[in-house]
Amino acid sequence: MKCRRCKATAIIDLPSHNFAFCQDCFIQFFEKQVQKGIEQYNLIEKDEKVLVALSGGKDSLALVLVLSRLGYNVTGLHIDLGIGQSSSKARGVVERFCNKHEIPLIIKEMEKEGLAIPKVKEKLKRPICSACGKIKRYYFNQIAREYNFDALATGHNLDDEVARLTSNTLRWDRAYLSDQGPILPADDGFKKKIKPLWRVTEYETAHYAFVMGIENHYAPCPYSSGASFSILKSVWIDLELAMPGRKFDFYQGFLERGRQAFFDEEQVKGKILSPCPQCGYPTSSDDTCGVCRIKAAVSEETI
Amino acid sequence: MKCRRCKATAIIDLPSHNFAFCQDCFIQFFEKQVQKGIEQYNLIEKDEKVLVALSGGKDSLALVLVLSRLGYNVTGLHIDLGIGQSSSKARGVVERFCNKHEIPLIIKEMEKEGLAIPKVKEKLKRPICSACGKIKRYYFNQIAREYNFDALATGHNLDDEVARLTSNTLRWDRAYLSDQGPILPADDGFKKKIKPLWRVTEYETAHYAFVMGIENHYAPCPYSSGASFSILKSVWIDLELAMPGRKFDFYQGFLERGRQAFFDEEQVKGKILSPCPQCGYPTSSDDTCGVCRIKAAVSEETI
Repeated sequence: MKCRRCKATAIIDLPSHNFAFCQDCFIQFFEKQVQKGIEQYNLIEKDEKVLVALSGGKDSLALVLVLSRLGYNVTGLHIDLGIGQSSSKARGVVERFCNKHEIPLIIKEMEKEGLAIPKVKEKLKRPICSACGKIKRYYFNQIAREYNFDALATGHNLDDEVARLTSNTLRWDRAYLSDQGPILPADDGFKKKIKPLWRVTEYETAHYAFVMGIENHYAPCPYSSGASFSILKSVWIDLELAMPGRKFDFYQGFLERGRQAFFDEEQVKGKILSPCPQCGYPTSSDDTCGVCRIKAAVSEETI
Repeated sequence: MKCRRCKATAIIDLPSHNFAFCQDCFIQFFEKQVQKGIEQYNLIEKDEKVLVALSGGKDSLALVLVLSRLGYNVTGLHIDLGIGQSSSKARGVVERFCNKHEIPLIIKEMEKEGLAIPKVKEKLKRPICSACGKIKRYYFNQIAREYNFDALATGHNLDDEVARLTSNTLRWDRAYLSDQGPILPADDGFKKKIKPLWRVTEYETAHYAFVMGIENHYAPCPYSSGASFSILKSVWIDLELAMPGRKFDFYQGFLERGRQAFFDEEQVKGKILSPCPQCGYPTSSDDTCGVCRIKAAVSEETI
């Protein structure tokens, strides 16, 4: 197989696009796709300050690298969850990566906040995943406000977005359908949230991470029971094989034609937010916000 | 396994409903589901005259049988496509079935209309499936008008409907999404169209056909390249296995919450219809209708 652009020997075949690339041309293709995704929905401008959530996984590291190479103003944020070796390994990967690529990095340690995940898990009766997600979103938002970032970026790729869209569609969840997309505008004290990898697949992102020499850190969370949406992702492997390009068309078709049908449903979800009396975080609760309640639950029981 | 209703030994297990049935209780369950589906969207009343399209396959025969047993006023319509042995076998199955169950039957022979499918196929340059579908819909509608039926019923089951809905959703086809459902109201000279089997699966319908002793006639059309929507149906086998009940919830959720989002899109599809100057059939063409054009094409070239 030959590279579609330079006719050198191809190293990657992309049936959904109906072409193959050599290494250099693939890197160019991938970065152009990300740039196109940013421009298509006006995610960010070059003069905006972007905070990128870095878990240590390939998607988030590929994201911060491609944004940096495209000339965007990026800073990484790693939240150290305090889950023993698992967290210290992830943190090490992120630190070495940012150091190598000269990307500014903010590290927030949950241990210091009294919210090390094993401790939270021990004290909470409900499943830890939703509390952990809430805590991560909280600090992601708080740090963006504290340091005055313009946007928060996450490494969700096309497969993540399609799996989520499929899940929302299977349930015909109008509120979630009305605001799914590569950009969630700033609102109610929250900075805008963007997903610049929405045009590229998991496979393309993994390949980019590989050819760019990103350190491979695969360590699933010891508390997680497995990848979310795994059945939906596996179903999409079959669909894409039978109908190459359908995955992207489904997502882009939704953005262009489907989503607007649900726009007047936003009110279904919309709740009035007010600042948490304890920490100032926007919350729909009449009392303190969810993370302040977790903090209280964790500290109360240890007294 | 025991029958959920009478505790006899079960002969069928329905994981999506989370119960099993013996033969008699399954028949009752199946017929109640169809009755419920009819009442849920007011498909028909007992005093309405229903024309049921009978291809000779198990779905359409099960449909006319269950409607007859539920006390509805049904008449069968078989369109003899004139495809050699394939058509004469299907016609024989339908004739024996209606005779046995004392169901009135109208037979319409395409040979007599100058539209035997092999002849049409020979003369037309485009694929035969769409022309054949057009011809069948045409006579189905024409006979309903001629004999003054109130409704046209087809044997589409939950799997057919879910596959079609999935296809429409994957393409975000707003016009098709706005009018998919178990009933298409009468409009522009067309009688209402109903799908009374929308609540039951292909498996349940096949099982009902089997226990009711319906003659098994499996003869795929010699011109068809295979079942339509087969990849979507296969994907739904995986989804339903992982999430029992999801298939029905997806379809019912669409009817309850999804479809309305697309209602104002009906105009996208809506074209003004006027009677064909040759046969009176409602058509969006300025000239004669599609079937009159097929007839002309077939006869012209044979002169």
